[in-house]
Amino acid sequence: MQLHEDTIAAISTPHGVGAIHVIRMSGKEAIAIANTCFNGVDLYRVQTHTIHYGHIMQHDEIIDEVMLSIMLAPRTYTREDTVEISTHGAPYIAERVLQVLLDLGARQARAGEFTQRAFLNGRIDLSQAEAVADMIASETQAQAQLSLQALKGDIFVDLQNLRTQLLDFISLLELELDFSEEYVEFANRSQLSNLLQAVSTHLSELLVSFQYGNAVKQGINVVIVGKPNAGKSTLLNTLVQDERAIVSAAPGTTRDTIEENIIIDGVLFRLIDTAGLRHDVDNEIEQIGIKRTFFKMQQAHIIIHVIDIHDIDTASKLDDLHRLINKEYKEAYIITAINKIDEKAFAFPILKNTVLLSAKNKINIDELKGLFSNYVSKQKQNVNTHIVIHNIRHKESLSKALEAIKNASEALSQNKTADMITSDIRIALYHIGEVTGVVTNDEILGNIFSKFCIGK
Amino acid sequence: MQLHEDTIAAISTPHGVGAIHVIRMSGKEAIAIANTCFNGVDLYRVQTHTIHYGHIMQHDEIIDEVMLSIMLAPRTYTREDTVEISTHGAPYIAERVLQVLLDLGARQARAGEFTQRAFLNGRIDLSQAEAVADMIASETQAQAQLSLQALKGDIFVDLQNLRTQLLDFISLLELELDFSEEYVEFANRSQLSNLLQAVSTHLSELLVSFQYGNAVKQGINVVIVGKPNAGKSTLLNTLVQDERAIVSAAPGTTRDTIEENIIIDGVLFRLIDTAGLRHDVDNEIEQIGIKRTFFKMQQAHIIIHVIDIHDIDTASKLDDLHRLINKEYKEAYIITAINKIDEKAFAFPILKNTVLLSAKNKINIDELKGLFSNYVSKQKQNVNTHIVIHNIRHKESLSKALEAIKNASEALSQNKTADMITSDIRIALYHIGEVTGVVTNDEILGNIFSKFCIGK
Repeated sequence: MQLHEDTIAAISTPHGVGAIHVIRMSGKEAIAIANTCFNGVDLYRVQTHTIHYGHIMQHDEIIDEVMLSIMLAPRTYTREDTVEISTHGAPYIAERVLQVLLDLGARQARAGEFTQRAFLNGRIDLSQAEAVADMIASETQAQAQLSLQALKGDIFVDLQNLRTQLLDFISLLELELDFSEEYVEFANRSQLSNLLQAVSTHLSELLVSFQYGNAVKQGINVVIVGKPNAGKSTLLNTLVQDERAIVSAAPGTTRDTIEENIIIDGVLFRLIDTAGLRHDVDNEIEQIGIKRTFFKMQQAHIIIHVIDIHDIDTASKLDDLHRLINKEYKEAYIITAINKIDEKAFAFPILKNTVLLSAKNKINIDELKGLFSNYVSKQKQNVNTHIVIHNIRHKESLSKALEAIKNASEALSQNKTADMITSDIRIALYHIGEVTGVVTNDEILGNIFSKFCIGK
Repeated sequence: MQLHEDTIAAISTPHGVGAIHVIRMSGKEAIAIANTCFNGVDLYRVQTHTIHYGHIMQHDEIIDEVMLSIMLAPRTYTREDTVEISTHGAPYIAERVLQVLLDLGARQARAGEFTQRAFLNGRIDLSQAEAVADMIASETQAQAQLSLQALKGDIFVDLQNLRTQLLDFISLLELELDFSEEYVEFANRSQLSNLLQAVSTHLSELLVSFQYGNAVKQGINVVIVGKPNAGKSTLLNTLVQDERAIVSAAPGTTRDTIEENIIIDGVLFRLIDTAGLRHDVDNEIEQIGIKRTFFKMQQAHIIIHVIDIHDIDTASKLDDLHRLINKEYKEAYIITAINKIDEKAFAFPILKNTVLLSAKNKINIDELKGLFSNYVSKQKQNVNTHIVIHNIRHKESLSKALEAIKNASEALSQNKTADMITSDIRIALYHIGEVTGVVTNDEILGNIFSKFCIGK
């Protein structure tokens, strides 16, 4: 399985000072290179998946005292011979040990190159490779669970099943082409119609699952709106204090001062405070703030409309803003939070998705968070497939596949020739194959693996 | 060898996102705990020093796909059963896996607690334990080499040899005490005198080696002084640009803007720029700057006195400042750098340790750096022992031991009684034992191991 000529090496542990660093090396020459610089046992004479004590040497100089792990092909991450060297946790030491390996002929691994070899050597499909990167970026239980599901290869199995069914039919259709002058039909048109319908339904369901999967992966946007002094910032602060606030580890994440991330029941919520909304605004700066608020509301999964209880007499009337939000932002899950309930008595019936709370004195905050979790449960209920799509690349490919299947259905219903139907199905197969990596090219691979960290 | 009741666990890799994290667990229950949460092979049935693929589970939930290493006592770092779990490199995942282990009965390890167990279980002595921390803090080749020498146990062997010789004599002296009424001498006084002299010489030499060892460990202070506009900052910048500048990883390092670290031939030099020195200063702020300069010069290993070539006619005369420095800072290695040699012709003989250079146009900078390395070589030549002391705790203990040996010598020369001589030698033995940990207490151990990172 050793398709690659060169042997790659990299530091696999995070940067910085720690108890240990691990340097990983994979490829044809991994054992030979390690054996040259390792002063311990003869690595040609040890069994696979064993650990050995010794020193890494550069000529006569001891670089470090290490534990060295040997894993022989094909039962390794890359399916190549692999060596892992556990050193003292100084960046200086790890870099020296890596340099020794490079001096002996290994090449510095590019980002994600070990995983890329695992893919190219057939150990995992492309959706699994992407799941590795997702796993490393996981900050919440829900994100990790989605990634683990993909890591197990469930997406591959599901899509490969679709591909097989479509390919079986295509081979019959293409047989007809060979006998095209005789007008035979090997492929049962009614069965084909049913299959296309079933595939179309399945792809649609996978695309629906993306709504849930993507929200879990990226975090659920919760935009807090309301009039000035309704208590929006207080509510945000109360929610943040109550739950573990996390700082996103994703590179390039830009956050303004009024955005905070919290985790509830293992799901990431991005709380976004906004400028207060008023009826009569002639101040230009405030108008900009309000435009920005409307823009954020369009991206919201959840909108919390905070209303000061002093501003209302009966909950059934509420205000213009409440009507506007419910009319204009139907896509979002709208929660009405009537604030400062400890300051004024109230005697009106509570509407659906309404919480009576005190942000300042932390009354009914759990009820509000319960509604957050309700939103997640509802999204999850929409998922009819046992796998969840959460990668935007997969979504785009499956959307194109769905379009092609629909075209094939239409061609079939219009009694178009076998080659026209086949052509559409081939397009669908191509796009399904893009997800698993059956179909791929350097650009796709470059895009995917460049986002990995070095050493994985 | 399993002295400890509890099993400890910690994340051993540096903080942050990387390709992998490693969670380490050591103690009586390490195998049992790992076997409970590891879904792969039965860890009771595998051989020591082997690696296994599987999943870490919390009840029915998969936490991660991992590689798990088993190392059975006593052939481990701690001499206890040890398990290392290599996870995907998300901090979230590593923390979840650690939490699973803690939930199953492991205890979060304190800083340095694995190494502390290695010491308490007799695998390493205290000087080796300290070398582990030094190794992790290494930023240069010279630092790593000192740490590795200590890690090998050379200090222990050397001091244990001294102890044995002294103990042999003490047992003879103490035998005399049992027969004190008979005035016998089992211990040959002249041999004892020779031994004490030899021990005293050896301890003195070790203390001399500390000058070199400490300079290498902490970095060599190079203070750049001179009149305003002599070109001090330009020289500092040229040196920094020329060599890899490093930022110290040591916590709590405070650096003002005019200090830069560079590495030459594997040795760390701390370049310190200073306020310009003038003859006539009545400005109060400048006086403060000058006081600070004098203070830094007192801490200097090397002083570079930068002189503008325009300010001198003959090198043999130079200026008042030059005389002052050579008179007041004899402890330092003084380099005279005559700057801007490309701007004016010169026709005077060059004195020792003088470099004619141009900081701006990078002329003769290598010659200056050659003098830096000369300084290091000279320091190294002063070392007469095959080991180098570089830990201030060791220096302090050995100083006290030397004092006690000198007292013993004096007592001996004054024909004091065996019990008086013995008492001094016992004090020396105590202090020598502090270095290797033969003598120790909770405070010493607490001080040493609290400086470690978690997971080592």
